[in-house]
Amino acid sequence: MKAAVALLLLLAAPAFAQVPERIIQRELQTSQAYDTLSYLTDMIGPRLSGSRGAAAAVAWTTARFRAWGIPVTNERVMVPHWVRGREEGSLVSHMNQKIVLTALGGSVATPAAGITAEVVEVGSFDELKTLGTKVKGKIVFFNNPMDMELVRSHRAFEAYGKAVAFRSAGPSRAAEYGAKAVVIRSVGSASLRTPHTGSLRYDGKQPKIPAAAMTAEDAMLVHRLLQRGERVRMRLLLTPRELPDVPSANVVAEWRGSEKPEEIVLIGAHLDSWDLGTGAIDDGSGVAMVMETMRLLQEMNLRPRRTIRAVLFMNEENGLRGGRAYFDKHKNEKHVAAIETDAGAAAPIGFTTTLKGDALVALEARTGALAAVGAHRFETTAETGADTSPLVEAGVPGFGLVPEPLHYFDYHHTPADTLDKVDRGELAQDTAAIAALAWVLADAP
Amino acid sequence: MKAAVALLLLLAAPAFAQVPERIIQRELQTSQAYDTLSYLTDMIGPRLSGSRGAAAAVAWTTARFRAWGIPVTNERVMVPHWVRGREEGSLVSHMNQKIVLTALGGSVATPAAGITAEVVEVGSFDELKTLGTKVKGKIVFFNNPMDMELVRSHRAFEAYGKAVAFRSAGPSRAAEYGAKAVVIRSVGSASLRTPHTGSLRYDGKQPKIPAAAMTAEDAMLVHRLLQRGERVRMRLLLTPRELPDVPSANVVAEWRGSEKPEEIVLIGAHLDSWDLGTGAIDDGSGVAMVMETMRLLQEMNLRPRRTIRAVLFMNEENGLRGGRAYFDKHKNEKHVAAIETDAGAAAPIGFTTTLKGDALVALEARTGALAAVGAHRFETTAETGADTSPLVEAGVPGFGLVPEPLHYFDYHHTPADTLDKVDRGELAQDTAAIAALAWVLADAP
Repeated sequence: MKAAVALLLLLAAPAFAQVPERIIQRELQTSQAYDTLSYLTDMIGPRLSGSRGAAAAVAWTTARFRAWGIPVTNERVMVPHWVRGREEGSLVSHMNQKIVLTALGGSVATPAAGITAEVVEVGSFDELKTLGTKVKGKIVFFNNPMDMELVRSHRAFEAYGKAVAFRSAGPSRAAEYGAKAVVIRSVGSASLRTPHTGSLRYDGKQPKIPAAAMTAEDAMLVHRLLQRGERVRMRLLLTPRELPDVPSANVVAEWRGSEKPEEIVLIGAHLDSWDLGTGAIDDGSGVAMVMETMRLLQEMNLRPRRTIRAVLFMNEENGLRGGRAYFDKHKNEKHVAAIETDAGAAAPIGFTTTLKGDALVALEARTGALAAVGAHRFETTAETGADTSPLVEAGVPGFGLVPEPLHYFDYHHTPADTLDKVDRGELAQDTAAIAALAWVLADAP
Repeated sequence: MKAAVALLLLLAAPAFAQVPERIIQRELQTSQAYDTLSYLTDMIGPRLSGSRGAAAAVAWTTARFRAWGIPVTNERVMVPHWVRGREEGSLVSHMNQKIVLTALGGSVATPAAGITAEVVEVGSFDELKTLGTKVKGKIVFFNNPMDMELVRSHRAFEAYGKAVAFRSAGPSRAAEYGAKAVVIRSVGSASLRTPHTGSLRYDGKQPKIPAAAMTAEDAMLVHRLLQRGERVRMRLLLTPRELPDVPSANVVAEWRGSEKPEEIVLIGAHLDSWDLGTGAIDDGSGVAMVMETMRLLQEMNLRPRRTIRAVLFMNEENGLRGGRAYFDKHKNEKHVAAIETDAGAAAPIGFTTTLKGDALVALEARTGALAAVGAHRFETTAETGADTSPLVEAGVPGFGLVPEPLHYFDYHHTPADTLDKVDRGELAQDTAAIAALAWVLADAP
């Protein structure tokens, strides 16, 4: 709160020069963001924490900053090292039909022979509670599609939030009543028999049971069979392993301020990705925007009053170790704002922010330049990003880039999160929006 | 040709009663086509020739006809029994990135250790020829996307025909110059990292080399890496097996004509499907239309002058053994027309037909009722379906149902060819169109 008031005072100062406009124009003309993203996704590929890809991404992004003449450090973070194994599902009761599924991140393995059990469908935690120990020894199937009305109304993140509760908490909730395993309907807004992975969160008080996400098609099949009155028995085999933690790093690059270098505007994205795709929209594009912002400032030789610090966080997807480690190390520094970009690379429509009231009005008065890329809408929300959430909870004003969310969850956490889903021009617009906002925040008198 | 003239004479006769209109109305009101399709896809599932699913489909469809009181027989056909095995691809030159691919139907296996070789991309057979023995020992990559302009212009089958040439003939053409294996870009109009399988055709004069279809995303990745000037080495492991031929059957049901039972209007679809999905659009929906047409005629107690014969062909996908066996057995019977439905289950827009000129004009005058379901457009083409092609080549007038083709190749031959892609109402419209056309052709004086 105090930080917000400080920011308000800053923003009440006289108008700035035309730098934001110049930043946006230059980025749209000379963007290298897509080239950065290409290297990250094509040459390095998937970057799950602890993997060879994640280590290569730390090394390569660090080398890029250095090559651009931007001071950069690696800040050590110990990260989980979960490795996906075989994943097989079939309906032993129905012609052994294959069920396409993927282990939820963090899931324990099934026994080596797999689990074969009856499937019980539930649509809510209330329904699970009502069934109670009737699910004992069974596979609990959480069948919760994303609300496509919300998705089509550009509120895809809201729809995601509702459905994802079953992915996060479902396994332990079902374990509480003695379930042997959990399968969920993939949380996504499109499917061509496409599984969507993502983390589960085991509750320490319950036994850990294996959990997987079926594709929408497979979830609909099981649902229809149950609706027919069929007894459905599924075989599930998952062989993931949780290996010992591995040292990794947040990549931190700085563009020092000319007048108040100790005051920091953070721009952040996460360097790790899920293992199924190459993490182009989640969050390679965010990484590219953050790196490109720094390159652009360097190229334009623009030195703001405050420091702009780029942080490429490690382990957003399955642990948030990077976000927490950054906070632990840097919480006593003065962060003026934290801008996070982790919502894809479609054309920007604005930012979420924890600012509201006069502070927001004052900011809006200073950020008219964002209209050039359609990114001038600010929406006040409680959360603006996962990696920066410890900072924001501590009172730092938060900002989150909002690319058009309509198709984000078509690809999110799937094998289809690949470079071809990103448009070069839209990525440049996103970058321009972040660079301009960061400049406005960092250069306010 | 003679048959076409005969049909022309028939159709020149006075107007029929309003039966086609009644057929269409009744089907739209009471269709059970979707229920038939549901059973076939959900309870039986994939139906590749030689598989347990194919055998179950023969038994179940036969039993259904019998339960409906429609005379039915099984006509034995020996079919190939190709079984997909493991299929793995990775870029050993690039972080071992996984390449999502699927074996082409009929492909031989790689050696047990897989094939690891450099990838050479070609865009045409001419380009392959120019490279010549430079592809020796390499993996040839045919990178031929479907022409999406054609797809969007409702000419998806034309686009398919162009791209599929590389799937069919590519492996042997590459083998001629010493290639070790072939990978193609999946022939399809959509992808969420979705592989599209389908048959290859080995040329007996060349060594058989393994072949697989990469997803569009993987094809684009390999293309981009090569464009960067990278040397791309891929590991390919395929373990399909060609087992001995298996006895199977065409399912043949008859609704005998009242006046000229020896004259036959054939309505056909194929009972086998690829193994990746459950063959809902290819061609479970066709099977459902054909079966439902027979059920409807029985329920309405409508007896046309000629016989309507339903044929559920076995092995359209990887051999056409059923279509050929039917022709061998029945070629001396008098087929007045052959209607095939193997183009999905979207809303109908009409029929392709080998009829033209006056014969077609005369038919159009008799089939105005089809406008009620938007299926009144006839387009003259040389081919109207694979299973009935031997009949049509022998001069029988051919007809092919044309559902709107825009999204057909999004799902075709993929794991995503599942029941949820079919709309109950549209399937009823397709069925109504076939039933009405069959009636008009069978009841002409």
